[in-house]
Amino acid sequence: MKNYKMILRYDGGRYDGWQKQGNTENTIQQRLEEIISCLAGCKIEVFGSGRTDAGTHAWAQTANFHMCWTGSVDELKLAINEQLPEDIAVVSLEETSDRFHSRLSAKAKTYEYTIWLGNEPPVFWRRYIFWCKKDLDTQKMEVAARVFVGRHDFKSFCANKRTKKSTVREIYDISFRYEGRRLVIAYHGNGFLYQMVRILTGTLIEVGEGKKEIRDMEAIILAKDREAAGFTAPAKGLMLKEVFYGEGQGL
Amino acid sequence: MKNYKMILRYDGGRYDGWQKQGNTENTIQQRLEEIISCLAGCKIEVFGSGRTDAGTHAWAQTANFHMCWTGSVDELKLAINEQLPEDIAVVSLEETSDRFHSRLSAKAKTYEYTIWLGNEPPVFWRRYIFWCKKDLDTQKMEVAARVFVGRHDFKSFCANKRTKKSTVREIYDISFRYEGRRLVIAYHGNGFLYQMVRILTGTLIEVGEGKKEIRDMEAIILAKDREAAGFTAPAKGLMLKEVFYGEGQGL
Repeated sequence: MKNYKMILRYDGGRYDGWQKQGNTENTIQQRLEEIISCLAGCKIEVFGSGRTDAGTHAWAQTANFHMCWTGSVDELKLAINEQLPEDIAVVSLEETSDRFHSRLSAKAKTYEYTIWLGNEPPVFWRRYIFWCKKDLDTQKMEVAARVFVGRHDFKSFCANKRTKKSTVREIYDISFRYEGRRLVIAYHGNGFLYQMVRILTGTLIEVGEGKKEIRDMEAIILAKDREAAGFTAPAKGLMLKEVFYGEGQGL
Repeated sequence: MKNYKMILRYDGGRYDGWQKQGNTENTIQQRLEEIISCLAGCKIEVFGSGRTDAGTHAWAQTANFHMCWTGSVDELKLAINEQLPEDIAVVSLEETSDRFHSRLSAKAKTYEYTIWLGNEPPVFWRRYIFWCKKDLDTQKMEVAARVFVGRHDFKSFCANKRTKKSTVREIYDISFRYEGRRLVIAYHGNGFLYQMVRILTGTLIEVGEGKKEIRDMEAIILAKDREAAGFTAPAKGLMLKEVFYGEGQGL
């Protein structure tokens, strides 16, 4: 039984997110488990670094699974890719330590949220971008974002209101990148709550629109109330960019 | 009655090409004519710079139409964009000379064909790229492409075998650009026959695969026979990049 670490890229547009939950059947995890279980000849569980929402994309989701496989790792990667639909791909596959777990060993993650600043419809990016159709004061958004950097209780930015678990997380950095008419906001932190990046982005967009002020940001954090924060930006603009593991893969 | 010149961007994936022909109903031209005719209150014809095949995309197709419109040109552009589906956009609209005709005044065009050179599936580009899943000798392809530059009878590269019209065209340049694992072949010429760019690309891919040799290219041109050339590369990799008009818009 070997432990395999894989990096996955997917267009989440037509899926119910990464993880199977209750009745949802159409998840990325499920597609992978079906294919890998079929190759293994027995039920294999695939562990992701974390859930991605329905409609959210991944440039590099990390997952791992334990399997007996007599062929080479390249043959296994090819065999999985051959059976995956064209909107999911294994971009790398390697054998790893038995103790590696894609979620428990993760040290940090980067998510990117992409906003369209153009006046004309973003024809070729429309599936991976949010076009809010309003003029945004991105300078103000950049200043507001700095308030979120650091260790905070992000309860106001958590869609799951009834969670009993800690809602404290640390954001190491929020950076703004401009690529033509696209604005990419990259969030780098030790972990993110359910819909946290989308709610942070929605709040920043409301600052950009003038609906909220920079000075409101601290009060929103302190409120520990989802109602205080802005709207939840659409899933399709969100991309899990990278999952980071420490030295020796975080063991 | 004013003459409007517009630049259009579209994802051709779900359309039967630019132009209505016979029974095809689902064309880009038709969508535009419906919307503009509705705004005008009478039947308006929209002239494109040329047809694009079913499934082919446009970064900048040029079209023109004659219309009575009392509002500003920006209002007209907005009104059209508001009614267009999200895979078609008017990126610019301006009033132009009465004598301007998007097809007759066109002096040159650039088409780009994008090929995926990676080993993993091109998840986010899959709709706009051709992945031939074979190792390509792109050096050989670059040398072979030079044979096509110049004024030639491109009958071997025309899908319409029964055409009575001249099949002589001039290709000013064919350039290769590498963007990560994407190879973009840009064809710049005074005009292109039906499926000519896709057949040229298919022929170059066959050179890259070793199925054809560089020395075969001249014989393929001289054969004036579609059977001599390579396969027709898929429509989805093709993009009409730009249409050029001379000084004073080619009048």
